[in-house]
Amino acid sequence: MSAYQPPAFHQLTPAAEINRRLDEAQAGLMKHGFDAALIIQPVDLFYFTGTMQSGHLLLPARGDPLLMVRRDLDRAQVESPVPAVGLASLAELARLVNDRLGAEPGRLGLELDVLPVKSFKRYQELWPRAEFTDVSPLILEQRAVKSEYEAACLRRAGELSRRVYAAVPGFLRPGLTEIEAAGLMTKAAYQAGHQNYLRTRGFDQAMYSWHVISGPSGGIPSFIDAAFGGYGLSPAFPAGASLKTIAPGEPVLIDFGLCLDGYQVDLTRMFSIGPPPGLITEAYEALAEIEVEMSRRLRPGQTGHDLYYLAVARAEKLGFGHAFLGPPERKARFAGHGVGLEISDPPLLAPGFNTPLLAGMVVALELKMVFPGLAAVGLENTFRIGNGEPEKLTLADDRLIVI
Amino acid sequence: MSAYQPPAFHQLTPAAEINRRLDEAQAGLMKHGFDAALIIQPVDLFYFTGTMQSGHLLLPARGDPLLMVRRDLDRAQVESPVPAVGLASLAELARLVNDRLGAEPGRLGLELDVLPVKSFKRYQELWPRAEFTDVSPLILEQRAVKSEYEAACLRRAGELSRRVYAAVPGFLRPGLTEIEAAGLMTKAAYQAGHQNYLRTRGFDQAMYSWHVISGPSGGIPSFIDAAFGGYGLSPAFPAGASLKTIAPGEPVLIDFGLCLDGYQVDLTRMFSIGPPPGLITEAYEALAEIEVEMSRRLRPGQTGHDLYYLAVARAEKLGFGHAFLGPPERKARFAGHGVGLEISDPPLLAPGFNTPLLAGMVVALELKMVFPGLAAVGLENTFRIGNGEPEKLTLADDRLIVI
Repeated sequence: MSAYQPPAFHQLTPAAEINRRLDEAQAGLMKHGFDAALIIQPVDLFYFTGTMQSGHLLLPARGDPLLMVRRDLDRAQVESPVPAVGLASLAELARLVNDRLGAEPGRLGLELDVLPVKSFKRYQELWPRAEFTDVSPLILEQRAVKSEYEAACLRRAGELSRRVYAAVPGFLRPGLTEIEAAGLMTKAAYQAGHQNYLRTRGFDQAMYSWHVISGPSGGIPSFIDAAFGGYGLSPAFPAGASLKTIAPGEPVLIDFGLCLDGYQVDLTRMFSIGPPPGLITEAYEALAEIEVEMSRRLRPGQTGHDLYYLAVARAEKLGFGHAFLGPPERKARFAGHGVGLEISDPPLLAPGFNTPLLAGMVVALELKMVFPGLAAVGLENTFRIGNGEPEKLTLADDRLIVI
Repeated sequence: MSAYQPPAFHQLTPAAEINRRLDEAQAGLMKHGFDAALIIQPVDLFYFTGTMQSGHLLLPARGDPLLMVRRDLDRAQVESPVPAVGLASLAELARLVNDRLGAEPGRLGLELDVLPVKSFKRYQELWPRAEFTDVSPLILEQRAVKSEYEAACLRRAGELSRRVYAAVPGFLRPGLTEIEAAGLMTKAAYQAGHQNYLRTRGFDQAMYSWHVISGPSGGIPSFIDAAFGGYGLSPAFPAGASLKTIAPGEPVLIDFGLCLDGYQVDLTRMFSIGPPPGLITEAYEALAEIEVEMSRRLRPGQTGHDLYYLAVARAEKLGFGHAFLGPPERKARFAGHGVGLEISDPPLLAPGFNTPLLAGMVVALELKMVFPGLAAVGLENTFRIGNGEPEKLTLADDRLIVI
């Protein structure tokens, strides 16, 4: 069997980028007293190796990492610069890890925020004396700061978002259902190479059929920690676009992240078929003002806590405190979130998040208002924090577009 | 705030259906010595309550269940016949559970196959003396046998699949990329109300951008335990449709499950733009023969183990043993799988699965062949096991369609 040949349209992560990430992670493991980390979650595996073939990455605090691949080894060896071997069984995993470390691991990092109990018990049986410690906080802290290579990936996803949202005025019309509009958006996005799976880290975080939310759908709450949820297609898919028909004059909110090469940006735009109610236009202008004020402070040293309260105060000053981030009893508990390989990357712009922001972090300012019975209004853009002005990555036309 | 009003297009699960499921689960809990189960995973919550709003279902072995909802309570109360209360904190969870049980739980069932370690530790702190036991095997055993209500849901998903696959000859043409074809398929599916999230239970099972696999893409392996994977869009989305352009005469395999009201069916069909190579036609005819032979034995009392080996033996007899379920060194380890609320429902038709099949189980016979360098060939249908002939749910035209 010949080795796997990657197609020309696959971008491989450069070896220098992978090696830099591994070095940084090893420094973190040493600093925090780990002997090693065993990385299993697909997104983390991709971040540290460049491949998402299934397997385990052993990352010792000192010494060479080892990628152990269940399948497909040929493909992993081509996609990743990390030395890779096949992995047929858990017994083999124990042998490979103990050999590489020179002993059974003592303090071993696992991604305990996502690893199921049942899987964890198998690792406990392999290493009954190990002290298993959650290594996800370290990984997520590292992933929060994007490199120049990652910034380039995110810029391309931002450029893709511009092209995809530009297609909306061409298809949005009264009589379409929300889900039909989502289908046309998806078609446009797929044509442009969008990777239709916005990854998130939570175990009970379902994906949804895109937020295309028209008129009163915007007042419908759901299980999501967000200002609104929308009806969704059924009680089994209870958020996002639904079979509701879009009516003339209804504001239409589209919240549709775009993804290329694993890197995603998040953005929300507003459309209306015919002039929207005056309140909606005013609310949208208020969101634009809040965004300007927040983006001015989106700099190293600021905190998610302060930015959240800055946004809330500004909304109140503009007379929209009751609607901002949702109706009073159902407000979202954040005004922005990190984004990158997962839609839930740190940092969070929310009360209690007092760790200073850093240059290189990428944050979506998620600004929403809800007017129950009438509509939801949203403006969201993704920014990369620099040492001066933040760089706006989502360059789609951000006026409320009347069709 | 007025209560949530469900839209007319949402189908609510009937109370009698929910109560029957709860009764059956309680009998299972009693039989297996549980004091109670605490159900958290969204799909299981939907199965037992009719709502997927976020929260916990306390199901005592004896006595009334209690749904505790983080958000959205109004919506959960309308969607579910199970009595529901709000849930603001873990301390409140402990109080509600202890009150309902009349004591701290002893043997408490949790879904340990999916619950992350970090979350589990919080439950351990709430009930330090409890014996936590994996309740997922019981839940999955129950979910494997579909009721008449569920059969009706699955029939409607099957009917949807017929309409969506009928759209393919209208758009498939040379020069399209695989992902563009997937986008057109998705648009057609969304228009028909398809719920674009085929749920699966594994923690590291990523979703993918649909399997539209043309010509040599069929020989590309991936991390999935399947006969083939396809290139996918990037190393970060390494399976399914890709940016490869579909060429004239290439066999095109489309494996695209459809979902309505949470219930999904799985099917695969073959297309070709112009006549395909003779080997491909012969392989497809062989798969059809294998399907007939398997479906004859798809009856109560048969086992997944026997059906798997029946398929393998038949493929060998037909001269396709080398290609069936993948190339020799990369064969999928199953020839069929249960399907319902998750694409990974039991039973599995695979070596070692010796539990007899039951009437009411729903199984996709996943028959694939791989000819590296040339193409993958697939035929897949979803059947409901009855006491006589199984009922075929996926009624899309199952000839190899030459366009």
